[in-house]
Amino acid sequence: MSTTLFTHCTLFPGAWSATIDNGFVLVNGNRIVEIGPMEKVPPSGTARVIDVGGRLVMPGLVNAHTHGAMTLFRGMADDLALQTWLHDHIFPAEARCISPEMVYWSTKLAAAEMILSGTTCVADAYFFSAMSGQALSDCGLRAVIGHGIVDFPVPSVPDPDRNVATVAAFIADWQGKDPLITPAVFAHSPYTCSPATLIKSCRLAEETGVRFFLHVAESRNEIDMVIDPQGTSPVRHLAALGLLGENTVGVHGVWLDDNDLDLVGRSGTHIVTCPQSNMKLAAGVARVPDMLRHRITVGLGTDGCASNNSLDMFREMDMLAKIQKVAGGDATSLPAQTALHCATTGGATLLGLPDIGRLEAGFRADLIVVDLNRPHLTPFYHTDLLVYAASGADVDTVMVDGRILMAGRRILSFDVEEAKARVRELARNAGPTH
Amino acid sequence: MSTTLFTHCTLFPGAWSATIDNGFVLVNGNRIVEIGPMEKVPPSGTARVIDVGGRLVMPGLVNAHTHGAMTLFRGMADDLALQTWLHDHIFPAEARCISPEMVYWSTKLAAAEMILSGTTCVADAYFFSAMSGQALSDCGLRAVIGHGIVDFPVPSVPDPDRNVATVAAFIADWQGKDPLITPAVFAHSPYTCSPATLIKSCRLAEETGVRFFLHVAESRNEIDMVIDPQGTSPVRHLAALGLLGENTVGVHGVWLDDNDLDLVGRSGTHIVTCPQSNMKLAAGVARVPDMLRHRITVGLGTDGCASNNSLDMFREMDMLAKIQKVAGGDATSLPAQTALHCATTGGATLLGLPDIGRLEAGFRADLIVVDLNRPHLTPFYHTDLLVYAASGADVDTVMVDGRILMAGRRILSFDVEEAKARVRELARNAGPTH
Repeated sequence: MSTTLFTHCTLFPGAWSATIDNGFVLVNGNRIVEIGPMEKVPPSGTARVIDVGGRLVMPGLVNAHTHGAMTLFRGMADDLALQTWLHDHIFPAEARCISPEMVYWSTKLAAAEMILSGTTCVADAYFFSAMSGQALSDCGLRAVIGHGIVDFPVPSVPDPDRNVATVAAFIADWQGKDPLITPAVFAHSPYTCSPATLIKSCRLAEETGVRFFLHVAESRNEIDMVIDPQGTSPVRHLAALGLLGENTVGVHGVWLDDNDLDLVGRSGTHIVTCPQSNMKLAAGVARVPDMLRHRITVGLGTDGCASNNSLDMFREMDMLAKIQKVAGGDATSLPAQTALHCATTGGATLLGLPDIGRLEAGFRADLIVVDLNRPHLTPFYHTDLLVYAASGADVDTVMVDGRILMAGRRILSFDVEEAKARVRELARNAGPTH
Repeated sequence: MSTTLFTHCTLFPGAWSATIDNGFVLVNGNRIVEIGPMEKVPPSGTARVIDVGGRLVMPGLVNAHTHGAMTLFRGMADDLALQTWLHDHIFPAEARCISPEMVYWSTKLAAAEMILSGTTCVADAYFFSAMSGQALSDCGLRAVIGHGIVDFPVPSVPDPDRNVATVAAFIADWQGKDPLITPAVFAHSPYTCSPATLIKSCRLAEETGVRFFLHVAESRNEIDMVIDPQGTSPVRHLAALGLLGENTVGVHGVWLDDNDLDLVGRSGTHIVTCPQSNMKLAAGVARVPDMLRHRITVGLGTDGCASNNSLDMFREMDMLAKIQKVAGGDATSLPAQTALHCATTGGATLLGLPDIGRLEAGFRADLIVVDLNRPHLTPFYHTDLLVYAASGADVDTVMVDGRILMAGRRILSFDVEEAKARVRELARNAGPTH
C-alpha cells in the first residue's frame, strides 16, 4: 500500500477544531493513520512526501445533493419561478436531451467542477444513473448515486410501471462494483410519486441496505400539490405512509412547521439544505438553526447547476451562513463553523459514510489543500475565512481515498478538455435558450 | 497616445446587451474608440494587438462602497450582531491600529484583491484618506475616496471639532492631483454625526463639487438611535436637514419605508446596496426592486471586508440577485442583468462618472477579460452566468483608463507580495482575535 506524508501543513482537522499551525498528515493506502504537529512527524521512510509549504489541509467537502448531469442545462433558464422553470424549461429540455451519453459527459463535467472546488464526495441523483456512476467512478470521486423515480415516462424509464424495478436492477449492479460508489434510491418527490410508489421505493432501499432520498417541502406550492389537501404537510404525508426514519434523507425541507420538525427530528430523518437553489428559485429559506435544535443531521448541497448555477461548496457554505443570519435577524444564528460542519460531517453522516468529513486517524484519506497565500485570504486569523472569503478556486490539491485527483489545480484522474468539448457539442443541440 | 486592439473577443458591452460572438475593442489612450464584430476590425497599424482567443470582454466592475483599509480586520470578528461587532470589536481595533502606514498597506492589499476579481473602480471611505488615495493611485485603480467624518476623536482627527476642516484640506489636496482619483466627503452616519456636522459636511461637498456620502438606515437599531425618536426615520431626518439630493449617496438603505423611498426617489438621492454585509451582520434586506421602481440609481458595494468578508464583486452580484428573489418570494424580481447593471452603470452613475460602466465608443477604457474556458462556465448559453457561476478568479486581464493592471492573473502595476507581507506584519500587532 502506498504511503503519503503531507508536511508543513496549516492543519484544520474539521469544523469547530483549532488549527495546528505547522502539522503533518500521514496517509497509508486509503486511510489517514496519523496527524500531528511537525515536531512529532514520523520518519518518512518510503512514503511520498508532499511539502505543502504552509497551505491549509482540511477535509474534502461533501456535496450532499446535486444532479451532476444538469451541467448541460446550466444557465439555460434563469430568473424564473420554480414551477415555470421546472415545467416550461427543465422537464422539456430533459425530454429532448437525456440520453446515456448526455448523462455520462455532463456528469463528468460536473466532476471536474467539483474536484476543482474541493468536493471529494457527492450525492448525485438523476436518470440513467449507471452512467452517472460510471462517470464519477472514472473521475475517482466518492459518490452516493440515487437513481430517480417518478410516476411519468422519462427517457431512461419509458414505462413508469418499471420505475422501481429499474432502480432495483441499478442497485444490484452497483453494490460492490466500486468501493467509492454507493447506489441509492431517489424518489423525486411526494408530488411526482404516488403513495404506492413512495412506499415501494422506501422498501427497496431498506431491503437492499441503501439510502432513501426524496425532495420534500421545497416550495410552498408543493403543500397544495400533495395528495391530501386537508392540511396535510408533505412531511406529515410521508409520516403517515411510514417513510420517515434514519434511512431517509429529505432534500430541501424549506417548508417545515414546528410539528414537521418534531416528526423529522424524532424519526431520525436527515435533511439536506440547498440554500442557493432555494434562493434563486425563490422557494424560501429552510429553518436550519431550528433543525439543528431538533438534533436533525443537516447536510449541505448545491442542487443541480440549472438552479444555482454553481457546484462550488465554498460558495454554498458562505450563502448558508449568510442567508440564515439575515432570515432570522440574528448574526449569531449560524456560525461559519456550523456551515463547515454541514458541508463535511453533516453530509457524511446522512450519507451513511461515518469515516469521512474529518482528518483523524482511521478516517478515509479524503482531503484538500487550500492555498492561503492570496490577497483575499490575508491576513488569515481564523478558519471562518474559509466560509466568508475562500472560494473553490483557492483549492490546490485534492485527494480522495488516498488517491490524488488534482495537484496544482491540474486534474490528473481524467481528461477535462474532452468532457468540456463533449458537453459543448451536446449544448449545441440542447434546443431553445432564452 | 498608445493604441490597443483586443481581437477575437466574446464581447459583452454591458448589462442588458447581447454579446458579439467574435468582436474587437479598439482603445486609444484612455478611451474606447470603437467596438464591433471582427469582420469590421480596423487595420491594427501601430496598435498593440491582444488576441483574447474567445475570452469574454466586459466593462470593469464598480464597487460603489468599501473600506479598503479594513482588510487588516478581515475575519477578526465574525458571526456577531452589528452593534456588538462595531462597538466591541471594530471600533476598539481601529483605535489600536489605525495609522497612515496601516491605511496605505491595507488599502493596497484591498486593491490587489479588487484587481484580481475584476473591479476597476472603487468608492472607498476611511480615515487618513490621503493614504488610501495614495495607495489606490499607486495601484492604478480608478477611485472615489471619501474621507470619514464622525463626532468623536479618531486617530486621524484627534479633535472632532476639526473633522470637517480636515476633509476640506484633503479635498483641496486631491482635486486635480491624479485624474483617476476623485475626493469626496463621507459623513459616517446620522447616529455618529450631529445635525450640524451633517449639514457642514454636505455644504463642503457642494462647495467643492464632490459627492456627499453617508451610511443610512443600515440596521433597525439605527432608527431608535437617530436624534428624534418620535417616529422620524433616518431618511426623514436627513430630508428635514436638507441633505437629500442628486449629490447625495446613501449607503445601505436597508430600512426604508414607502415614504422614505418616495423622498429618496423624488430628491434624486442615490443608494448603494451591500447585500453580503447586510446579510452577515443580520442587518436586513434592502428593498432594491422597490428602489428601482422609484427610479433610484442603485449601485452595488461589498462594504469593508471586516463585514463580508470578500471584495469580489462577482460574488456580490450573485448574492444581490439571490437574496432579492428569496426575500420577495419572486424569482423574477431581480434578474442577473439588473445585478450586472448595478455593478457597472449603476455605480458609475452615482459616483458621477458617466463615461464608465459600458464598452462603447467614447467611454473610458476600463475593461476586464474573463476566461470562459472553465468547467463551471461550460456551456455558456448566456451572460447571466457571469452572475450565477463566475467568480473573480475567472478574470484574466484588467485594464483601467487604457493601462493594463493585470495580465494572465499577474498584477503588473505594483508589488502584491510586499502588500501581503506588510499587512501580515500589521496583523501580528493587531491585538486580540477570537
